[in-house]
Amino acid sequence: MSDEPPTDDIMCATYCALCEHGYADVTMADIAAASEKSKSALHYHYESKHALLLAFLDDLLESFGARLDSVDGETPRDRLLGIVETVLEPSDDGPNREFKTAVLEMKAQGPYDGAFRERLSDFDRTVRDYFAEALAAGVDSGDFRAELDVSETADFFVTVCTGAQTRSVAVGRDTARTRRTLERYVESNVLADATPAETEPGTPSEAER
Amino acid sequence: MSDEPPTDDIMCATYCALCEHGYADVTMADIAAASEKSKSALHYHYESKHALLLAFLDDLLESFGARLDSVDGETPRDRLLGIVETVLEPSDDGPNREFKTAVLEMKAQGPYDGAFRERLSDFDRTVRDYFAEALAAGVDSGDFRAELDVSETADFFVTVCTGAQTRSVAVGRDTARTRRTLERYVESNVLADATPAETEPGTPSEAER
Repeated sequence: MSDEPPTDDIMCATYCALCEHGYADVTMADIAAASEKSKSALHYHYESKHALLLAFLDDLLESFGARLDSVDGETPRDRLLGIVETVLEPSDDGPNREFKTAVLEMKAQGPYDGAFRERLSDFDRTVRDYFAEALAAGVDSGDFRAELDVSETADFFVTVCTGAQTRSVAVGRDTARTRRTLERYVESNVLADATPAETEPGTPSEAER
Repeated sequence: MSDEPPTDDIMCATYCALCEHGYADVTMADIAAASEKSKSALHYHYESKHALLLAFLDDLLESFGARLDSVDGETPRDRLLGIVETVLEPSDDGPNREFKTAVLEMKAQGPYDGAFRERLSDFDRTVRDYFAEALAAGVDSGDFRAELDVSETADFFVTVCTGAQTRSVAVGRDTARTRRTLERYVESNVLADATPAETEPGTPSEAER
């Protein structure tokens, strides 16, 4: 993907330095070393590491939004699962695990730092909005259940994806397992013509036995 | 709860110091200050902060297991949801949010530190095993669907609870919302006599309309 990692030199250098050193240890000198700029040039643009990391999060949210916008899908189901895939694997290449680790470290800064928490809330809300919009479109088109609670379901998808990301970092669990589980969840709880979850296609339902 | 925070003086002091200073900043001096021991006495028992934090995680898993063992429930459904509640709110009192933040910081250490990752994996596996055992008991008793995929469902519950914990720290989202959503999930996807999720009680199903 041409937009991942960020193409702007400073943002790209921040990405690389975060991957290499982690959030807690990364310094302005590390970021300067990864860029074509001197440390004093970096300080000219950003008064502190904190200010630079906030700008980095803003930039990341912008490119993440662009990736979510570009998720296509023949059907509402495909679009919904495309968003799941994009959220779970935000970058197709690059040192993904290292970056996800740095992101988790930044999430743990939420309670300490209002400006960080604001960005983290923007990410959380953005993902929820994309899920809600995809779910609402499916309800409108008749592909998804008319009585689906769009807001609660969107929020649930965010929780599930967040849990998959955390477990991926903490214990190395593959996010692909969650993708498959959510796929089955969509079949059984979201699609209008869902096969009831208790029956296999072709087998009689409980009531028919 | 008498077992939360840990009653042993050093473990209790570690708990308090983690809540006050966070994982990244806490020092042996902070832990000594919170305990009745001197810093040198602490070093007599634990050669480093790292060794002490590993012992703390072992102790935490033990008391967490004891709390999960004590989860009761008249029905398999009640026991399953009791486990959800215990996982989402591991301590009924104390500075819960601060401690959850320290735990999230430690989760972000998984990729850097094999000994930490081992403990984190123990926690992950323990929670999954308790969910699996509760689910299997419900299948055996006929309360839950005979064809429930116990292993996948248990893993899904861990992912959902982990996501709720991360969002609680990062963006302050109340874990009670996830408790309610999982309650509905159990009604629609786990219970043997579940009302199909697409219908409200008393309303005609899609097929009947």
